[in-house]
Amino acid sequence: MNFPTRLVENAVTEIAKLPGIGKKTAMRLALHLLKSDELVTIDLASALVELRTKTQYCKKCNHISESELCSICSGNRRDQTVLCVVEDSRDVLAIEDTLQYNGLYHVLGGIISPMSGIGPEELNINPLLERAGEEEVKEIILALSPTMEGDTTAYYLSKRLSEKGVKISSIARGVPVGGELEYTDSVTLGRSIVTRTIYT
Amino acid sequence: MNFPTRLVENAVTEIAKLPGIGKKTAMRLALHLLKSDELVTIDLASALVELRTKTQYCKKCNHISESELCSICSGNRRDQTVLCVVEDSRDVLAIEDTLQYNGLYHVLGGIISPMSGIGPEELNINPLLERAGEEEVKEIILALSPTMEGDTTAYYLSKRLSEKGVKISSIARGVPVGGELEYTDSVTLGRSIVTRTIYT
Repeated sequence: MNFPTRLVENAVTEIAKLPGIGKKTAMRLALHLLKSDELVTIDLASALVELRTKTQYCKKCNHISESELCSICSGNRRDQTVLCVVEDSRDVLAIEDTLQYNGLYHVLGGIISPMSGIGPEELNINPLLERAGEEEVKEIILALSPTMEGDTTAYYLSKRLSEKGVKISSIARGVPVGGELEYTDSVTLGRSIVTRTIYT
Repeated sequence: MNFPTRLVENAVTEIAKLPGIGKKTAMRLALHLLKSDELVTIDLASALVELRTKTQYCKKCNHISESELCSICSGNRRDQTVLCVVEDSRDVLAIEDTLQYNGLYHVLGGIISPMSGIGPEELNINPLLERAGEEEVKEIILALSPTMEGDTTAYYLSKRLSEKGVKISSIARGVPVGGELEYTDSVTLGRSIVTRTIYT
């Protein structure tokens, strides 16, 4: 790719490091910023730096937070007896959006992935074991992605947590709501039969 | 959309102002930056601010430049007798990528668009008329997008430039290379017949 100046090249290279953004899109964004008011760029840059340097993580659940405890952990309307274990803060937001869960969370900060060199030590697992040992916790829901890594992590966690005498569950896997049976892949469909819900 | 903190909300709002990036993608990018090393964000932010505040525009052709004159205008290997008129710097890069053009450029900085309130006064047109009056300029190629606005701008420019006694041309419109005749829209196909190229 041809760059008109070093400044443009530098900006395009940095923008293209973002996930899902290639050099062509990066160039389009850079030229957009050049065309827009200077304040647009300055506001964007300072919002990014503030986000990265000032964001804290909840001491209890590791979710993104404005203070020591996140708004979920510090709220006294949440059910303190259930913990939902997720990979990262994005999953917390997704589950909160459903309005179907009223317990607490525990953010692992990643997932066991030998391919990327991430083992249990790299994750926020020891604090989870401690929390599982606390008296008020009755159930731990594993809400991990239904991938090889997610299943490995769920298996590892269920083994480690089993000593704690706490109920362990996993989110249901099955045919997505609105999906057509005939287009559902056979593994999912098979699982949905094995783990069928009993009405009465 | 649910935001965990004000910092995240602020960053997502700023990122989502970029063209083609919605709130969901913006959230993904913000959480990616939070997960990455602090330097990634700081480098990105400073590259953007540098780009916006330090980029200059060529005094002659209005293309993005590192100094008073851009590398194209200041190079003495370019054909000084042809000017290629384009909407913005992105088009200069696209034409340079083809390696088929060796003349100079003139960047209008936009296109006549009554819908967006952009008239000829908002564009870099008077300097073009001056350049067209210079003795060495023999031909002006209008390389504008084949849209309503592009055609309006081309018509306006050809009228204004006709007094200057300079040859005026437009880039060819026709069937794109690699395109199938039967799938080409009828306006393009019709034009390609009317403006056919004669072999001998």
